[in-house]
Amino acid sequence: MHKICVIEGDGIGKEVVPATIQVLEATGLPFEFVYAEAGDEVYKKTGKALPEETIETALDCEAVLFGAAGETAADVIVKLRQILDTYANVRPVKAYKGVKCLRPDIDYVIVRENTEGLYKGIEAEIDEGITIATRVITEKACERIFRFAFNLAEERKKMGKEGKVTCAHKANVLKLTDGLFKKIFYKVAEEYNDIKAEDYYIDAMNMYIITKPQVFDVVVTSNLFGDILSDGAAGTVGGLGLAPSANIGDEHGLFEPVHGSAPDIAGKKIANPTATILSAVLMLRYLGEYESADKVENALEEVLSLGLTTPDLGGNLNTFEMAEEVAKRVRGE
Amino acid sequence: MHKICVIEGDGIGKEVVPATIQVLEATGLPFEFVYAEAGDEVYKKTGKALPEETIETALDCEAVLFGAAGETAADVIVKLRQILDTYANVRPVKAYKGVKCLRPDIDYVIVRENTEGLYKGIEAEIDEGITIATRVITEKACERIFRFAFNLAEERKKMGKEGKVTCAHKANVLKLTDGLFKKIFYKVAEEYNDIKAEDYYIDAMNMYIITKPQVFDVVVTSNLFGDILSDGAAGTVGGLGLAPSANIGDEHGLFEPVHGSAPDIAGKKIANPTATILSAVLMLRYLGEYESADKVENALEEVLSLGLTTPDLGGNLNTFEMAEEVAKRVRGE
Ligand SMILES: CC(C)[C@H](C(=O)O)[C@@H](O)C(=O)O
Ligand SMILES: CC(C)[C@H](C(=O)O)[C@@H](O)C(=O)O
Repeated sequence: MHKICVIEGDGIGKEVVPATIQVLEATGLPFEFVYAEAGDEVYKKTGKALPEETIETALDCEAVLFGAAGETAADVIVKLRQILDTYANVRPVKAYKGVKCLRPDIDYVIVRENTEGLYKGIEAEIDEGITIATRVITEKACERIFRFAFNLAEERKKMGKEGKVTCAHKANVLKLTDGLFKKIFYKVAEEYNDIKAEDYYIDAMNMYIITKPQVFDVVVTSNLFGDILSDGAAGTVGGLGLAPSANIGDEHGLFEPVHGSAPDIAGKKIANPTATILSAVLMLRYLGEYESADKVENALEEVLSLGLTTPDLGGNLNTFEMAEEVAKRVRGE
Repeated sequence: MHKICVIEGDGIGKEVVPATIQVLEATGLPFEFVYAEAGDEVYKKTGKALPEETIETALDCEAVLFGAAGETAADVIVKLRQILDTYANVRPVKAYKGVKCLRPDIDYVIVRENTEGLYKGIEAEIDEGITIATRVITEKACERIFRFAFNLAEERKKMGKEGKVTCAHKANVLKLTDGLFKKIFYKVAEEYNDIKAEDYYIDAMNMYIITKPQVFDVVVTSNLFGDILSDGAAGTVGGLGLAPSANIGDEHGLFEPVHGSAPDIAGKKIANPTATILSAVLMLRYLGEYESADKVENALEEVLSLGLTTPDLGGNLNTFEMAEEVAKRVRGE
């Protein structure tokens, strides 16, 4: 039995998550879904965007499936990532047939460090109108994120990928912090003889995801750089409606679409469930359910290529109808 | 007489700058070019990447035309920007005919704050393997960069553009520093009733430059965000070979291509001079030479659309031949 903490959250989270559950149930796997609250709505009710019980449930389950939070997103999701110590934020960037992409051969993964950098929340007002934030980079966090990235590259190499890790940093300006980041990258790289290692400045990297995205395999970077880079990357393969993410730690896994709560389209049942379904695919792999993961991904791929989609991708199905097309194929109907 | 400090610097700087001077001379304007050194080469000779005399020359001239620096780039260019107090880094993003762009209707300007943020150079190693960098955002720097952006939007509105400023920040996570950034943005916006003001998170913005670049007019952001965003934006309109920039202050102007010294192609005369020629166009406008600026830009536009370019854009001219095609048209030949 897989015990999954389900947090729908706000806005379209209440649509894309139930739609994804529909697909997960179609796998026939034994799931126990434990629902928990987080986000603006529960904040309005209780004064807490991330209630204690939610944290407890998240800690207690095998994995967390998260939808979206509104205004309180940062307080919910950044905090959850820290509490669960999910230090690797994994964001696949992949072109699917039937989706408008820059190129059809884009297939890489961004691994974003998920616990430090400018997300430490250390800020101060030094004097009136003078504010500072502290960017933290530690050897310990570098080591584990790079090891994660190289391990992922090894796994991907077994699946026929190149076997390369690209590190993005700004060591020319941030000489100490990103100097350390880059140094540890190449130190860890030495442990992986079979995997290529290269590095770029983050600004150049942000261009390369547009001008030569097909050359990347695994891209690893610090927290905020990864935040910015992965949205750009999502833009090259159809936008946030399709961008999934996995937050992985040694003890916990948290799976969420990269998009937000999209209040402008919430309640209309037109939100694209793809990003959340793909996040569930990542969750299935995390749970060791590789066969079901492939089944869902293949089903989704077919549905996308047939244009059986929500309006944003040119189709005329609603959120649940699109999910049902996927579910049907997962069930083998 | 316009007295211009010319710093070729390293690598292809030694090609694209002379090629651009060729074009500037074709305008027939009275220029005095004062050459100064900076970068790796002078560092090797003297131990200083940015010699005192270069700083003095730069301070003494009406404008600086800069090529590129190699490994020492950060020590040269970041320092020069600070010394000249050129607080606005202006980076036009424009689709030219004959150049492979995401869309033909891209035409906006990124205004990057150029003096603070993570470029302050405040870093420390707190303990072994624990490093920090300090991101500084001040009300004073915010005010002047936003005023600059809104003034630019007003100018562009006179030329038929929409009249809109988009502010990119990460106030949901950087609550104090970018909270201040956003607050001051809307405060300054109030002074400009005729200009629309809107804001996005920097991550979303990095996607929008790919998925809806045609909707932007003036985009303003902090230092490092602008660094990252502008390279991505360059990628949507043909890459760094075409991306110019102007560093503007109340007293000084420094003009440079966004690309670096490109050691891999240096000396081969195949570097695309477009970015530097376009930087010179920005310099001409700064000098009040609007007619010559338009002449050079139009000439360059024609040359690009005719495919009279360096190999990177599919042509078969070398750096100086391409510049000569522009110069010829500027002279009216
Ligand atoms: C909502 C926000 C705090 C979050 C982040 O900055 O990490 C989001 O942009 C993301 O990429 O998951
Ligand atoms: C060379 C480097 C220091 C510089 C910067 O980071 O500003 C460059 O990337 C730029 O965009 O002009």
